[in-house]
Amino acid sequence: MTSQALIQDFEAMLGKENVFSSEADLQSYSYDSAVLNPVVPSLVVRPVTTEQLGKCVAKLYENGIPMTVRGAGTNLSGGTIPDKSETVVILTNGLKKILEINVADLYAVVEPGVVTADFAAAVAKKNLFYPPDPGSQAVSTIGGNIAENAGGLRGLKYGVTKDYVMGVEFFDATGALVKSGSRTVKCVTGYNLAGMLVQSEGTLGIISQAVLKLVPPPAASKALMAVFADVQHAAEAVAGIIAAHVVPCTLELLDNNTIVRVDDFTKTGLPREAGAILLIEVDGHPAQVADDAAAVEKVLKANHATDVKVPKDADEKFKLWEARRMALPVLARCRPTTVLEDATVPRSQIPTMMKAINDLARKYRVEVGTFGHAGDGNLHPTFLCDKRDADEFKRVEEAIDEMFDIAIKLQGTLSGEHGIGTAKARWMEKETSRGTILFSQRMRRALDPKGLLNASKIVGI
Amino acid sequence: MTSQALIQDFEAMLGKENVFSSEADLQSYSYDSAVLNPVVPSLVVRPVTTEQLGKCVAKLYENGIPMTVRGAGTNLSGGTIPDKSETVVILTNGLKKILEINVADLYAVVEPGVVTADFAAAVAKKNLFYPPDPGSQAVSTIGGNIAENAGGLRGLKYGVTKDYVMGVEFFDATGALVKSGSRTVKCVTGYNLAGMLVQSEGTLGIISQAVLKLVPPPAASKALMAVFADVQHAAEAVAGIIAAHVVPCTLELLDNNTIVRVDDFTKTGLPREAGAILLIEVDGHPAQVADDAAAVEKVLKANHATDVKVPKDADEKFKLWEARRMALPVLARCRPTTVLEDATVPRSQIPTMMKAINDLARKYRVEVGTFGHAGDGNLHPTFLCDKRDADEFKRVEEAIDEMFDIAIKLQGTLSGEHGIGTAKARWMEKETSRGTILFSQRMRRALDPKGLLNASKIVGI
Repeated sequence: MTSQALIQDFEAMLGKENVFSSEADLQSYSYDSAVLNPVVPSLVVRPVTTEQLGKCVAKLYENGIPMTVRGAGTNLSGGTIPDKSETVVILTNGLKKILEINVADLYAVVEPGVVTADFAAAVAKKNLFYPPDPGSQAVSTIGGNIAENAGGLRGLKYGVTKDYVMGVEFFDATGALVKSGSRTVKCVTGYNLAGMLVQSEGTLGIISQAVLKLVPPPAASKALMAVFADVQHAAEAVAGIIAAHVVPCTLELLDNNTIVRVDDFTKTGLPREAGAILLIEVDGHPAQVADDAAAVEKVLKANHATDVKVPKDADEKFKLWEARRMALPVLARCRPTTVLEDATVPRSQIPTMMKAINDLARKYRVEVGTFGHAGDGNLHPTFLCDKRDADEFKRVEEAIDEMFDIAIKLQGTLSGEHGIGTAKARWMEKETSRGTILFSQRMRRALDPKGLLNASKIVGI
Repeated sequence: MTSQALIQDFEAMLGKENVFSSEADLQSYSYDSAVLNPVVPSLVVRPVTTEQLGKCVAKLYENGIPMTVRGAGTNLSGGTIPDKSETVVILTNGLKKILEINVADLYAVVEPGVVTADFAAAVAKKNLFYPPDPGSQAVSTIGGNIAENAGGLRGLKYGVTKDYVMGVEFFDATGALVKSGSRTVKCVTGYNLAGMLVQSEGTLGIISQAVLKLVPPPAASKALMAVFADVQHAAEAVAGIIAAHVVPCTLELLDNNTIVRVDDFTKTGLPREAGAILLIEVDGHPAQVADDAAAVEKVLKANHATDVKVPKDADEKFKLWEARRMALPVLARCRPTTVLEDATVPRSQIPTMMKAINDLARKYRVEVGTFGHAGDGNLHPTFLCDKRDADEFKRVEEAIDEMFDIAIKLQGTLSGEHGIGTAKARWMEKETSRGTILFSQRMRRALDPKGLLNASKIVGI
């Protein structure tokens, strides 16, 4: 089929306003938030009903045209970069209906293009709580969150997106509708395809609807900021809090470089001399919050915290949390290229990992700012460099290579929440096994016989 | 390969003591806990190391011999009944090592044959908690629990087996080792194959190792028994408790028939005149427990509970919970055939579903005792009959058929926790879609090209 004929068909199907083929439009969908080369797609389509979504997929399948589905493009591993120049990008941001928020049964049903923060706000209005809060929540979509298994600041206590997906409906590569899971809290009817679609990065099917679990909101919460002269002490405090059987909802770390850079930009008044700070929040029943906060404070002091500060009001707490949320954008401003990593280790290994990251920065003479979900063992060492400086970028790549080896040796993983995409595909076998790669490829080839769904991602096809 | 040569090979591989071919042995592995016809396998093998497990799978694959893996055979949908007379049963009960209980990082690593209750006890000794507690926990194995996604009495607050599987290693149909998931709380490295193996009923791979999440144990708990004259009032109280945003760890219902039958047998002193009783447990911080128990009591009274009893000590509570655990075995003694169902509905639909079950019992003139995890919407209507009475059994089957239709109409599911196996395969499409069946079959054929892994189960191959 000629591309002009295809465009006309899509225009007839979706309306001219939902088919994009100008050079400027195509450029806009050629990249995501990963440090990877852009690939300009041939066409961008925007279904506004799930029926249209299915028809788009079926049409592309019939014509053997590769497709990449895209929510907000905030992912960090290349999952939404088109595979090749023939690729058609399917935007889900026209599918943004919250179909149901069921207060009695604690679930919601949504279309894939609903923005995470909008959804969380709609749920909060009904006095319920949707915990997953990826850093990109202000723009990221639920469909993208599922496809990437997005994490966030509350993962430690509340889990990640996977833990809130009760069911999905999706179109397979051929455009056939597949349903898995249920509105019930327990469902074992058939394969756990809903679980399989989680973190599948658009390679197994295109999500058209999701049933999401909601929980009652915590009755109370308390935030703390702890200051440490030495980042190692902060890392040891993290391990100590978990070992004390306290599970905070948030337990975040910012190292000195991140603190200084963020404070330069935000003027929050962060302790610029600190080796590291921890931002901690405990929530639940008021009595539990009081006990947990006391237990946390004890661990912090035993691990040489020089100061433990309780924000005096919601505004002060918001500023501190905002400082954490600004870590990535602020670090990203410092140098032309930002390589954000998310190698993850068992929580007790955080002190070892923290030391290893700083040793690597010295060894390879690269600048790194580290922040992240320390309570999950999920740090975000962020390498600041200039990709055009071939020598520097090579040193960054070597440092990252060695960092993955260390993470795996510590029984950790390549990626806690950012995904594999194309960015980390070459390390996959190191963490898993040859059998894992072959099994995954066999599965993909059977489910996507023409190799149209984001073919180059994860393990290839 | 002749079966005699195969037996000798397995004897050389596993030792004579781990290869079973006598008629009595083969008969023992011809059935599970579902009401289905037995199928006698050709051979039973019992690897005692995971390396041997992989070799068994590879050998059977090479020889094109069907295999059914079996933990304790307690599943209720036929998942461990051999497919055909050529099938070799692989027992996992020789693989029962708890490899690690990591107190600092809140996980454990186990072999598949570890008995659930033994594991929970070993974890409790380290002052940690493994919540999934299927009714069969005293004999069921972790591998079987994962393959069936076993639930239990604590599902409402703590979730089911799926929620505790951080990682698995398994052998695919060819005997190649596949690894998915991690010892870290977050991991998005590759496909969520660990999640996919959950509830796959031995059809996608043979689990050789699992990493399981552990949690700190609750500091306090309180149990209550509420008595209702009318089962409908009990059902409405269940919906009311959830709507009041209390999430008990246990919320179980026993109807009058179950109460009387259990009391006849156990002499617990249950309220024999009651239309239904609810057994409720709330746990957590002591202050939370007090508040939750008070909130629950208020809902119970608003829904016409005639009595709310707090067990005076651990012994009295144990007796009540034991009465619940005895529901199935006691009902199963009453008539020659027990058909235990687990259709599940959103929790607010429990009153409608409860009424529908009792209406169906009258309409089809069949005896039913209903108990189960009412808080999960997961009731176990148990049909007591005699399969040899063709007319009666037909009426039971018709009643169940209609019950599934009702469950699906109420946005529920065929199976909350018992699985599909062969018992419910014919209803699969009704709940899902033709596309779901075809997608699942394509996946299976790719992952098991010779069709050797429990081929007739779930959607067939």
